Amino acid sequence: MSDIEQLKQQVEEQGVVVRDLKAAKAEKAQLDEQVALLLALKKKLQIASGNGDEGTKDYTPKEMAVRTEIFRTITSVFEKHGAVTIDTPVFELKEILVGKYGEDSKLIYDLKDQGGEECSLRYDLTVPFARYVAQNGISNIKRYHLAKVYRRDQPAITKGRMREFYQCDYDIAGVYDAMIPDAECVRVAVNVLSELDVGKFVVKLNHRKILDAIFEVSGVPADKIRAISSAVDKLDKAPWAEVRREMTQEKGLDAAVADRIGEYVQISGSGEEVLARLQALPELMASAKAQEGVKDMSLFFRYAKIYGILDYISFDMSLARGLDYYTGIIYEAVLVEENVRSPTTEAQPPALVAKKSDKKGKKDEEDESQVRVGSIAAGGRYDELVGMFSSAMHTKGKKTDVPCVGISFGVERIFSIVKARKSEAEIKANRTQVYVISLGDTVEDSLLEDRMRIAAELWDAGIAAEFAYKIKPRKQAQFDTCDSAIIPWAIIIGKDELSQGMVKIKNMAQKVEEEKGGVTVSRSDMIAELKQRLQIN
Amino acid sequence: MSDIEQLKQQVEEQGVVVRDLKAAKAEKAQLDEQVALLLALKKKLQIASGNGDEGTKDYTPKEMAVRTEIFRTITSVFEKHGAVTIDTPVFELKEILVGKYGEDSKLIYDLKDQGGEECSLRYDLTVPFARYVAQNGISNIKRYHLAKVYRRDQPAITKGRMREFYQCDYDIAGVYDAMIPDAECVRVAVNVLSELDVGKFVVKLNHRKILDAIFEVSGVPADKIRAISSAVDKLDKAPWAEVRREMTQEKGLDAAVADRIGEYVQISGSGEEVLARLQALPELMASAKAQEGVKDMSLFFRYAKIYGILDYISFDMSLARGLDYYTGIIYEAVLVEENVRSPTTEAQPPALVAKKSDKKGKKDEEDESQVRVGSIAAGGRYDELVGMFSSAMHTKGKKTDVPCVGISFGVERIFSIVKARKSEAEIKANRTQVYVISLGDTVEDSLLEDRMRIAAELWDAGIAAEFAYKIKPRKQAQFDTCDSAIIPWAIIIGKDELSQGMVKIKNMAQKVEEEKGGVTVSRSDMIAELKQRLQIN
Repeated sequence: MSDIEQLKQQVEEQGVVVRDLKAAKAEKAQLDEQVALLLALKKKLQIASGNGDEGTKDYTPKEMAVRTEIFRTITSVFEKHGAVTIDTPVFELKEILVGKYGEDSKLIYDLKDQGGEECSLRYDLTVPFARYVAQNGISNIKRYHLAKVYRRDQPAITKGRMREFYQCDYDIAGVYDAMIPDAECVRVAVNVLSELDVGKFVVKLNHRKILDAIFEVSGVPADKIRAISSAVDKLDKAPWAEVRREMTQEKGLDAAVADRIGEYVQISGSGEEVLARLQALPELMASAKAQEGVKDMSLFFRYAKIYGILDYISFDMSLARGLDYYTGIIYEAVLVEENVRSPTTEAQPPALVAKKSDKKGKKDEEDESQVRVGSIAAGGRYDELVGMFSSAMHTKGKKTDVPCVGISFGVERIFSIVKARKSEAEIKANRTQVYVISLGDTVEDSLLEDRMRIAAELWDAGIAAEFAYKIKPRKQAQFDTCDSAIIPWAIIIGKDELSQGMVKIKNMAQKVEEEKGGVTVSRSDMIAELKQRLQIN
Repeated sequence: MSDIEQLKQQVEEQGVVVRDLKAAKAEKAQLDEQVALLLALKKKLQIASGNGDEGTKDYTPKEMAVRTEIFRTITSVFEKHGAVTIDTPVFELKEILVGKYGEDSKLIYDLKDQGGEECSLRYDLTVPFARYVAQNGISNIKRYHLAKVYRRDQPAITKGRMREFYQCDYDIAGVYDAMIPDAECVRVAVNVLSELDVGKFVVKLNHRKILDAIFEVSGVPADKIRAISSAVDKLDKAPWAEVRREMTQEKGLDAAVADRIGEYVQISGSGEEVLARLQALPELMASAKAQEGVKDMSLFFRYAKIYGILDYISFDMSLARGLDYYTGIIYEAVLVEENVRSPTTEAQPPALVAKKSDKKGKKDEEDESQVRVGSIAAGGRYDELVGMFSSAMHTKGKKTDVPCVGISFGVERIFSIVKARKSEAEIKANRTQVYVISLGDTVEDSLLEDRMRIAAELWDAGIAAEFAYKIKPRKQAQFDTCDSAIIPWAIIIGKDELSQGMVKIKNMAQKVEEEKGGVTVSRSDMIAELKQRLQIN
């Protein structure tokens, strides 16, 4: 019977329990309990079926081991670039969030009004960051933040789309010279994704000012620019024909205008190629906005070359990004589908060179191949968000616009990829180094208190140790624990050896020939002998 | 002007801005923005005044450095004892939480009903853990969990009582022999608090069965036991006279019964002393419950001696613990007030010996001295909580009662103590090792691209590095950054040196005599020279 079938049966049976209790007019407390359990079972079934209503999940110890390792990698890159971390509350005043996310505001989770001010769960880490910078009058900060965010979206757990999920953000705030922090953010993205070894990826880049110029030059009326930009943003999920239909039929854009946009958004390639193509378009370059954007991007590619990341980048006019608050460069890292590994594929060296040369003219197929994996990191420059908060916070003429640029990693997708690389059995969820074992058959020979004493000595020496919480544990059960918990060393004690002041050290991981039955050492040398084997001081 | 006065003025000024906008019938978006800012300022004022309505706070980078270090210490002790970690969602189905916290259920935060099932923010980590164990049919697990919990309590930020706060929990679930995991939990508590160096503390212990026997033997009616237990629980905050008044006047207990309880709850001292006193009370020892509790506690003290923690423990009949779900041993670690250090006090070696000998007969004064600091860790045995969930989850005759024992650390108070030990200026919030500096006065001599190139080389070598994001940074500003960010090393470049293939390495932390102006090394040896100084391979 599959898990899902078993769950279905449990839901059914629990339904009977609840009905019986109701029929028997059972106590309220007891009935409530059983109803709660029925709901919990239903939830579990929904999650197992991939359509959990809440879209939340528990992380098991082995999953946590994977997640912790991912966070460690991400944090180490962020810290290598000098970032500090902050923490903000999981809920903010509702007023702080409204009006920041455009259409997506409907996905904000509100807390129930139980008295006090109205609050909502944070939707991302960017708006709380901007609020923090403004509220504390900070003029520059490079901060990272790994935390959960909340969206009342339709969950799709198989695709890694959850209602509660982690974001890992790195942002640079401050008045700096053009494109220096921007180039560093993209380098951080490339560095993180390479170190996580997620497979082949490409970072698509664009610039809001160039995009706006394209819309203006194509003839999009000013009041339709954001709506048309939203339509273009769908090009990574839908073919041009469909996006064109949305522009013309749903959003009432003139067909000729849409076609002109269609020409522009097909432009993509290396920085050199795309800059050359854009600069060869006099009608576009007549726009001051386009000039500013092109100037920024020229500088960006100059810095990107120094940073050694040109091979990972595609300058792509079809990238639009949904959020309203971007004002300059925007980017999105996407996995290139064919390289995503199945759990059974052997580990391969990282494939770092992004495929982007044969891209032009086959956008639809190209996008199609990426649909199921999609974006794993995204960000851009947002120079006015802090100012939205700070303009009122410092009223004494102090100018507190703080330009920002950042990158946000969507960890759930990365988690799925990294997790698929190892089998469950290979993942060590604990950090236990030593298991203290007795082989006796009687209570007296099982030496509980000696096992406790030795464990305490190991703990005092900073060695991670465990033993069976039984007066008389079975021999095999103790060895099985070492195997299943992947504990590399054992201290084995017996009554006779102990009375002679001796214990055995046994390597449980590698079956070292000379240590097959373990090596007998003096009780007083035990810690030193172990430390030597564990390579700790 | 103090921060609070300044904030008050800002609130006032912002109030004027909002009124003016309303009077001028400003655009809704603009007005909403300014109203949000007014609310944010009010919130900031409330928090600064110690009565924030939401009772949440941001953590600054320096605070995060302190918190991260505390978490690292706690995690390392938990892992030394073999624990694995899990994560559960920040909200649970409301039904999972109701009926688990007695009177305190009114403090549960609910999410707004926006369609779907009713959810609440987690109130603690214990109930979600029990739900996890039951739902996954786990028979034994030793898990830790560091995460935020939520309570709609009256915030008192000066006392470290927040509406959003971290708990760090360590729990052992499984059918094991008596008191072995219990003793380990108390050892973990002692170990964590000693390593965090929080000052002198004492772990008070009691046993629910002994307490219940005391109430029965004193003549408390069965239906009043939990209410009277709650009254006793207040003995750490209120003198006996007040607790007695609550028992007799509010809860209608006979005065003679209250006085008998009063005799019992004054019993405290070492395990040996208290066990002897209890065993000398024939009317108490006639109770089967008291016998079971005393048997457990005798075993506990035997194990506690092996674990070397007797000096930290007080067996205290006045400890009751509020939550209903405890079924065996209960404990609470409290700081002993006189030892809490002021920020100016020099660091002292940990004072590990708990003061408890001169305790009897002066409970009121003793408790008084602890009121302002209070409990920093607490827990106990709860053998029936998992069963409340699992009884319905496995309906096919599989018995899934999973007995548990655990300890929970209240990190906000620990945080305040640890933070007070260092001045803000001493805390390094970043991990940057090297700052790349140019001393030139012109754009050309400021060598931006060389600084970028060197930073990239350092990053590639795994060295945390930064540089000024300016084309022409001021010399002094760069040195100031090294000082304020506590960056220990600098690479200093100049046009002439670079053209000769040389750079300078300078120790910015210690003013090493021979390195006063920095040591000139070959550009190609730079990484190796730095690694040697940073002691990395």
